[in-house]
Amino acid sequence: MRHFGFTTFYFVLLRFADYSFISSLRSSEANMNLMTKKQVDTLVIHAHLFTMQGTGVGYIADGAIAVEGSRIVAVDSTEALLSHFEGRKVIEAANCAVLPGLINAHVDTSLVLMRGAAQDVTNWLMDATMPYFAHMTPVASMAATRLRVVEELKAGTTTFCDNKVFGPLWGEFFDEIGVRASLAPMFDALPLELPPLQEGDLYPFDIKAGRRAMEEAVDFACAWNGAAEGRITTMLGMYSPDMVPLEMLRSAKEIAQREGLMLHFHVAQGDRETEQIVKRYGKRPIAFLAEIGYLDEQLLAVHLTDATDEEVIQVAKSGAGMVLCSGMIGIIDGLVPPAHVFRQAGGPVALGSSYNNIFNEMKLTALFNKIKYHDPTIMPAWEVLRMATIEGARAIGLDHKIGSLEVGKEADLILVDLSAPNLSPTLLNPIRNLVPNLVYAASGHEVKSIMVAGKLLMEDYQVLTVDESAIVADAQVQAQRLSQRVAADPIHKKIVLMEAMARGQL
Amino acid sequence: MRHFGFTTFYFVLLRFADYSFISSLRSSEANMNLMTKKQVDTLVIHAHLFTMQGTGVGYIADGAIAVEGSRIVAVDSTEALLSHFEGRKVIEAANCAVLPGLINAHVDTSLVLMRGAAQDVTNWLMDATMPYFAHMTPVASMAATRLRVVEELKAGTTTFCDNKVFGPLWGEFFDEIGVRASLAPMFDALPLELPPLQEGDLYPFDIKAGRRAMEEAVDFACAWNGAAEGRITTMLGMYSPDMVPLEMLRSAKEIAQREGLMLHFHVAQGDRETEQIVKRYGKRPIAFLAEIGYLDEQLLAVHLTDATDEEVIQVAKSGAGMVLCSGMIGIIDGLVPPAHVFRQAGGPVALGSSYNNIFNEMKLTALFNKIKYHDPTIMPAWEVLRMATIEGARAIGLDHKIGSLEVGKEADLILVDLSAPNLSPTLLNPIRNLVPNLVYAASGHEVKSIMVAGKLLMEDYQVLTVDESAIVADAQVQAQRLSQRVAADPIHKKIVLMEAMARGQL
Repeated sequence: MRHFGFTTFYFVLLRFADYSFISSLRSSEANMNLMTKKQVDTLVIHAHLFTMQGTGVGYIADGAIAVEGSRIVAVDSTEALLSHFEGRKVIEAANCAVLPGLINAHVDTSLVLMRGAAQDVTNWLMDATMPYFAHMTPVASMAATRLRVVEELKAGTTTFCDNKVFGPLWGEFFDEIGVRASLAPMFDALPLELPPLQEGDLYPFDIKAGRRAMEEAVDFACAWNGAAEGRITTMLGMYSPDMVPLEMLRSAKEIAQREGLMLHFHVAQGDRETEQIVKRYGKRPIAFLAEIGYLDEQLLAVHLTDATDEEVIQVAKSGAGMVLCSGMIGIIDGLVPPAHVFRQAGGPVALGSSYNNIFNEMKLTALFNKIKYHDPTIMPAWEVLRMATIEGARAIGLDHKIGSLEVGKEADLILVDLSAPNLSPTLLNPIRNLVPNLVYAASGHEVKSIMVAGKLLMEDYQVLTVDESAIVADAQVQAQRLSQRVAADPIHKKIVLMEAMARGQL
Repeated sequence: MRHFGFTTFYFVLLRFADYSFISSLRSSEANMNLMTKKQVDTLVIHAHLFTMQGTGVGYIADGAIAVEGSRIVAVDSTEALLSHFEGRKVIEAANCAVLPGLINAHVDTSLVLMRGAAQDVTNWLMDATMPYFAHMTPVASMAATRLRVVEELKAGTTTFCDNKVFGPLWGEFFDEIGVRASLAPMFDALPLELPPLQEGDLYPFDIKAGRRAMEEAVDFACAWNGAAEGRITTMLGMYSPDMVPLEMLRSAKEIAQREGLMLHFHVAQGDRETEQIVKRYGKRPIAFLAEIGYLDEQLLAVHLTDATDEEVIQVAKSGAGMVLCSGMIGIIDGLVPPAHVFRQAGGPVALGSSYNNIFNEMKLTALFNKIKYHDPTIMPAWEVLRMATIEGARAIGLDHKIGSLEVGKEADLILVDLSAPNLSPTLLNPIRNLVPNLVYAASGHEVKSIMVAGKLLMEDYQVLTVDESAIVADAQVQAQRLSQRVAADPIHKKIVLMEAMARGQL
């Protein structure tokens, strides 16, 4: 969609005839000026509007949006909207880009409490992260969630698909801060203390504990799905298919079908998973998942790093979505997951990250893929912006509600200040440089104001719904305690980075 | 260097016996408390200090720095420095990382005026950038320089190796804003209007124009070398060895030797250069440069993208420095230059960028190289932090003055606020997470205060020496005019991105 003329605007309104004021518009254009203007909660005006409608970025010059309640009721030029609407609140967005709120489709918010403590090593999970996980408490984990969500919200992420081992107050916090969330409580069936395993050994399962963990996850998912006026939805989030027994995989799928929930988990994330699945079931993970009926539009497949191109195409063609965490997989494995192949096969790719904000992920995704294919035309700016918005929304099954600025959708939007020196100058003609700058030059700190479901969560760089400093301070306290517990446990001597500490490199 | 004891501290002071107060310290430790404290211009206290001394990052917990005039006169724990010094100004750096100012060793500051207008295309220079260059004016170019330097300064870059086609007020601006610069005026001997060339044709040279351009560049370099109390130095900066004739290459080297200037230019940057050099001289670029005596410590070799590993090693072993522009080459070519090979061969690598800030370049450099080698241990955080500081200083021949926080060196330093949500939490033990977070999590917007040559250029996020908003506004005006000139010239129809514009992707 480009700049609407009046007629287009009129028909857009007609499509949403449940708004009572529509009838007053069923008059000739000549009568328009005599109409009383419709009052709406909020008008955002004078924006460089990226609606993400159509197949590109849906740019509208000097664009405006009208919001009533939680929803968008009109999208057009500022002139058109000012002639029809009066806003109880008017947000001036001159020299701002206004975009749909960004989507982080895979984040384990608890990880942030060990940010910077695990990287530059061969086995990220076992050589660096595990000692911290071993000493994580529910209170620490919630402090992490609060920090991570505030941090990313400030950088324009409005939808969080949090996939973590959950505990008390998880849903309540997402309700309180006001972001959109699709929460996927994580579970597995590994025993609490894993016995020493040799290369090639199958993991043992603690089926009783696994079933209990899954039941708790299902209870959470059912209780919170549709909470906060629909702002919070849920998925089922087992860790990966090698970490639960077949019977639990079958139950999880049944429950997901019964409750209408997506299944959000790591798929073909690495050779460990592949080896376990091959040894247990005689097939590679994708073939195994196909066999047990997992390949369909209910699946949100995270990573796919270890899948062959043929397997990736099979998943994409099944209707499943994929999440690409470029920064995480780059730092953990030095690899670039096969999102380009997935997209070429027609599957929707969303972006995710436990450490980076989504502006960063857009940049890394575009650049990593250019490097992977030695081709600067791969994954141009507009493609990754779509992954962070409308395509991401498709991948997580929420494109009927979010991902574009469109009449009838939820009013989740962000204002990005284009007068930040690192986003300057603004060029419009012959080449408009805004989308490339949002992808290659923005850091996320240029996000000025944020609305979710029609409610302002941040205005002029101030978070309105929670106490940001208190959250940072609390996370610091909890992280220090976690760190001290790790330091007091001889397990810390196994952390590979202890050598770098000793060499004065940290 | 780690935490100094008193004795070490005493001897460090003795090494700089030109400071008059030293004699008063030549007394026993018992008398120390009776001493009058030495007044210094500035004390920075309570910092997480990364001195970059030694072979790692030179961390000092609760560290402090004393600055007198333009130089560092003491580096130690806060306790030690407070017992010896009184600061006319005291900068509280609690929960800040204090680092040497970052070095951008290769930037064409004029490019920023077309930021976001040239990317995602196969031939960045000819298909996207050239029409803008063709309409660049000296006034527009200076507006770009001002914007680029302010933008990067705010993100912690204190030394700029600007390599652009220069014009009036270039040196004056670097003097005024107060950053450190090593300016390399760019020149070539191509005719103003290049005739249509077929693949494989040699460029024609306009030797007279080329010589005049070189003379102007040499005049500039001689006039400004050592200006602003030594804060501004210069190099000679021809574009690349294929774009000037042999006789000019020989003169440039002679002049560089006579004047003690480094030579800063693109070397083996791509197949175009390689083909031209091979056709003209019968050798590949590195062999050719070796033959004409260019491979030595006077050379700052930019990119080396098209050099073989053997050639890279040859350059590294010659004593030359290399500049790695990860973001630029990633976006232009989808390639990762051979900096890892260069470093393994013992050569110093600096970071550069015309669009990104150096925090971003550190992150991209670490991640791109992990991906290039499919190895997450390649280029750990501390290595790229050294490239941005002490190793970069070596590469540009300024390590006697900058690159580490060390007694006797210039006081170029930055404070990074670690309480920014995206840098939180601060972990100290068993693993200190600060360096990884500076590399993988910082965006540059967390830089709070900046000192160059002992003078504060930014304090609490406010740039003190120039009017930031006026610079952004002026760059916007100049960029719009440039953009209009391009739009009015039919040449713009050749810009490949016009198709993306037409498809609604920008």
